Amino acid sequence: MFDNKDKTDINELGEFGLIKYLTDAVEITVSSTTKGIGDDAAVLDFNNKKTLISTDLLLEGIHFDLRYVPLKHLGYKAVQVNLSDIYAMNGLASQITFSIGLSSKFPLEAVEEIYEGALIACKKYNVDLVGGDTSASAQGLVISVTSIGYADADKIAYRSGAKEGDLLCVSGDLGGAYVGLQLLEREKNIFLENPEIQPDLEGKDYIIERQLKPEARKDVVELFETYGIQPNAMIDVSDGLASEILHICHASKVGCRLYEEKIPLDPMTYETAREFGLDPTVCALSGGEDYELLFTVSQDQYDKIKNQLDISIIGYITEEHAGCEMISKSGHVHPITAQGWNAFKK
Amino acid sequence: MFDNKDKTDINELGEFGLIKYLTDAVEITVSSTTKGIGDDAAVLDFNNKKTLISTDLLLEGIHFDLRYVPLKHLGYKAVQVNLSDIYAMNGLASQITFSIGLSSKFPLEAVEEIYEGALIACKKYNVDLVGGDTSASAQGLVISVTSIGYADADKIAYRSGAKEGDLLCVSGDLGGAYVGLQLLEREKNIFLENPEIQPDLEGKDYIIERQLKPEARKDVVELFETYGIQPNAMIDVSDGLASEILHICHASKVGCRLYEEKIPLDPMTYETAREFGLDPTVCALSGGEDYELLFTVSQDQYDKIKNQLDISIIGYITEEHAGCEMISKSGHVHPITAQGWNAFKK
Repeated sequence: MFDNKDKTDINELGEFGLIKYLTDAVEITVSSTTKGIGDDAAVLDFNNKKTLISTDLLLEGIHFDLRYVPLKHLGYKAVQVNLSDIYAMNGLASQITFSIGLSSKFPLEAVEEIYEGALIACKKYNVDLVGGDTSASAQGLVISVTSIGYADADKIAYRSGAKEGDLLCVSGDLGGAYVGLQLLEREKNIFLENPEIQPDLEGKDYIIERQLKPEARKDVVELFETYGIQPNAMIDVSDGLASEILHICHASKVGCRLYEEKIPLDPMTYETAREFGLDPTVCALSGGEDYELLFTVSQDQYDKIKNQLDISIIGYITEEHAGCEMISKSGHVHPITAQGWNAFKK
Repeated sequence: MFDNKDKTDINELGEFGLIKYLTDAVEITVSSTTKGIGDDAAVLDFNNKKTLISTDLLLEGIHFDLRYVPLKHLGYKAVQVNLSDIYAMNGLASQITFSIGLSSKFPLEAVEEIYEGALIACKKYNVDLVGGDTSASAQGLVISVTSIGYADADKIAYRSGAKEGDLLCVSGDLGGAYVGLQLLEREKNIFLENPEIQPDLEGKDYIIERQLKPEARKDVVELFETYGIQPNAMIDVSDGLASEILHICHASKVGCRLYEEKIPLDPMTYETAREFGLDPTVCALSGGEDYELLFTVSQDQYDKIKNQLDISIIGYITEEHAGCEMISKSGHVHPITAQGWNAFKK
């Protein structure tokens, strides 16, 4: 996979050398970071705010395929995916720890690229890298990220806060990351059959980026702050819209009506899904990895929400016994079922 | 490795089912845990304390060998190793996140055992399990633990706080975990050559426990609180005494004198090291995984330290130019060099 000629063997540096080499590039810029890398633990100061913690494990061959995921993008995405969980609480991320386990097939330059991507994400989102662990692995690449953030106690949006009559809203558009993945898989398979055929991804930048370089929606949390919007419940869309709606409804003990025609789809997502013979709505419902924010707000916040170009009102919350249902474009009623991505059913 | 007859295939449960199954056993008991498992992030409240964060990645074939590490012990040790980093800051651990990646060779019962060990450690140390991630892995077992704790700002002991004239102290005894590992490796090899020979570990309980079931020294942090002892610098002994002394000296820009005769060794460690033809002092200096606390205190705290049965004064801090040296039992002076465990040099 890698051309290791002229590359640096990590064994030459050793663990401490590698850690020093990598952490020399790390700057501390966030005011709540009292002490970052370099001691037994990082020291953080959140004053009177609540502390938020979330963690993800990303494993080669399960969560990513290095045959088409560039390492820098992988580092970037690993951070974004995790920050997204902090924003989904209506909080701001302030620190991460970033751990890597990697086998001897990876040269030092590979580790550098992963960290470079991670640090670009940190810089863009004003997050300090304050710790981590770097180790050899017997096989494959392992990344573990923990995000730390903060929020005022009365601003935190749990999954369980949705109330009957709330508007069901989502940021951005959905299904793009999944359709982008289909495209990358197709080109990988063509390449494996005939390495002389170059990948044809022209004009598909948006959905490829949705898959390879997702952006966590910090801007939506900031928009809530600016316009005084308080989400009653919120979750990020990592497993597909259907699965996340069910999480909110189950946790909040409510039902919902979702309107298929209101689900935001980018035209490229729509067209490419069609090319693959896929139903674009199903891509949005079950595709996952969009990292948009799904939330509910009271109807009295409608005036604040309606003019936000990047937020779609896609339905409303009902009482629990009414169930979770989607009204299709043709007016039929379908129960919403989760067919989200499942790491154990690959 | 496992007898999977009558065992439950994880695929039957799926990811969400597995998470629900595992988290049903998790109780929240720590007052700083506002919200544990079940949302995008955990919510914690440290009031006016500083927040401490530390993380570790444990990989099969690198950090542990499942041929002699029972899964429950592995879960227990994974937590202890990580809590140890919080205590090494003179803080108290209050929460962990615990993530597992595991291949299809592991039945549900294996995951349960790992979690059971982790939860026993949590309960014993009054720590809440507040999050994590559970995923399939392409190969091997992956564990990632992040510990969260707290401390008063003026009590935190960094590696960099050692001052000339400080007493150099260590809790407990050293080298046992390394000698225990030698014993387990020997018995594994005998077993692999002739599976009919049963392992002979009789009378070696202490050093086997030091390796398989280490205990993080929360009690030392509590002892400091009780007796009003403030360590100037502190680190936990994970890579061997020599390596940790050098970390403190480099971070604090000081030198030190270590007395070989003062290094605390358990008699069983001493005898078993001799049986293996190993120098017990070298086992303490370079063995690692003892998870004792190495710290320095001002000389004016000598009266508070001298009667603590479980703390040994093993040397003192000098000015930087004097270097880091050990005075051997025969009175010779040796420079202290780090030959600690290195995951990249297995």
